[in-house]
Amino acid sequence: MAILLDGKQVSRKVLLELTPEIEKINARLHPHTLRLVIVMVGSHPASEVFIKRKKEVGMALGITVDIRRFPEHIATNKLRAEVATIARDKTVRGIVVQLPLPPHIHEQKILDAVPVEKDVDVLGYKAAGKFYVNNREFTILPSTLAGILRLLHEYGLDDFTGKNVVVAGSGKLVGKPAINYFMRKEASASAFNIRSRTTDKAGALKMADIIISGAGSQGLITGEMVTDGVVVVDAGASKDPNTGKLVGDVDFESVEPKASYITPVPGGVGPMTVAMIFYNLVQLTKQRLKIK
Amino acid sequence: MAILLDGKQVSRKVLLELTPEIEKINARLHPHTLRLVIVMVGSHPASEVFIKRKKEVGMALGITVDIRRFPEHIATNKLRAEVATIARDKTVRGIVVQLPLPPHIHEQKILDAVPVEKDVDVLGYKAAGKFYVNNREFTILPSTLAGILRLLHEYGLDDFTGKNVVVAGSGKLVGKPAINYFMRKEASASAFNIRSRTTDKAGALKMADIIISGAGSQGLITGEMVTDGVVVVDAGASKDPNTGKLVGDVDFESVEPKASYITPVPGGVGPMTVAMIFYNLVQLTKQRLKIK
Repeated sequence: MAILLDGKQVSRKVLLELTPEIEKINARLHPHTLRLVIVMVGSHPASEVFIKRKKEVGMALGITVDIRRFPEHIATNKLRAEVATIARDKTVRGIVVQLPLPPHIHEQKILDAVPVEKDVDVLGYKAAGKFYVNNREFTILPSTLAGILRLLHEYGLDDFTGKNVVVAGSGKLVGKPAINYFMRKEASASAFNIRSRTTDKAGALKMADIIISGAGSQGLITGEMVTDGVVVVDAGASKDPNTGKLVGDVDFESVEPKASYITPVPGGVGPMTVAMIFYNLVQLTKQRLKIK
Repeated sequence: MAILLDGKQVSRKVLLELTPEIEKINARLHPHTLRLVIVMVGSHPASEVFIKRKKEVGMALGITVDIRRFPEHIATNKLRAEVATIARDKTVRGIVVQLPLPPHIHEQKILDAVPVEKDVDVLGYKAAGKFYVNNREFTILPSTLAGILRLLHEYGLDDFTGKNVVVAGSGKLVGKPAINYFMRKEASASAFNIRSRTTDKAGALKMADIIISGAGSQGLITGEMVTDGVVVVDAGASKDPNTGKLVGDVDFESVEPKASYITPVPGGVGPMTVAMIFYNLVQLTKQRLKIK
């Protein structure tokens, strides 16, 4: 019987801690309020769920969350110019480009149009570069990674020294940030990356003290692939073709009995990511306004 | 009996290929020539060897290599200003900050002072960020990684799809760039990182199809830790306390009989890294001058 890593509860704690900080910021910005813009291109059912959730959380916190919608067939250069225009607006303190963008768009070019001081997801090359080189003054982390680390911290699971951390998936939202974080001296973990092409996934997973999965592949990790006592964090998101529901990568039923700690899906990494976007927004704004 | 990955020979081939390109550039820059500046702080015996080698190669190629020396006790801010001044010089096309810097200096702050278009080592946060996000127009790779890949390419060993690549060490020169490269879709390898804190190094190394070692720890990898047929690339550099000579991480005597391919030290990754610095210098200069 694993202990559940309750992202719903921990995310509420994070947001509660942010409230006095947001009040301080809003007092300074008066008559404006702290403002986040979400750039949404076309419509994508999962994205609609995520932006609705961000909007709700923002409202509860006293943060204005504006959804800027653009048509599905917008060209890369046009969208890039639109994001640059949003970025020039001084009342906009943070920008989220809701991913995935339609396949014809050069995604990174859009992400690179978000200036580093408003890049709450740490996806533009400048913010990502500061994360990659571990810049001392750059105190935020990519939001999903930040959510995972905060969740592990709350359960006393954040001493990674000498631990084997197996990360499934190598995308920009989960896999790459996680591997790079665990390679840092401050983490001192052994970071192993597996992906769909990995021939012996089970061999690598068996070495894991901690598994972080962000492959977006339903049922990727099953009970017989993991060892007793493993900590399992499921940051995967894909659509179950039968139910249409968002599901993780981990076969909860078979993995949970062997794990010591495991995230539920939903209610694990998802709410943590949303909370950490606002956490990052607050940190970046405090830095800009020189609020201690 | 392993085949030797002959970095001396392959690096000569790389430099030979660069020669007509450098002639084209020098014709354009006349009466100036292509110019690289190496920033050297204090004195460090291994660094002296490396910069001497870079100077010699530059001379052979018709490239001016200037060594700019600064005293051991220079402050971070002062050195940063000096690097910024060098960077503003339009005749300087590439800058290498010779590492390691003395421990009192904030190394990344100095590396960040090298502008992206002159950052031949890809170590400043902007260039590193472009590498990390895999920017399509940014065509160079961190020099040691580039050297390793070119060396493997020459021996037909660069189809990494589904291969397990174990990288020892997590530093900015070898470990981090290598792991991030092998995580890319274009490589599609499984990238595993081990470090001094890794408890079961042998367990991870046994899974390796390719081992890339850049830990700087003599004798880290021994014959009994590897499997038959493994490809071994030794990019480690540390000083043998007995002989004072630069040595790699791999115990060549015990590993070579089991490996299919292995780099010698010296004559493996070292000369490749030097060659790729000049390769990167040529690429960045061609881009700036819009030479095809």
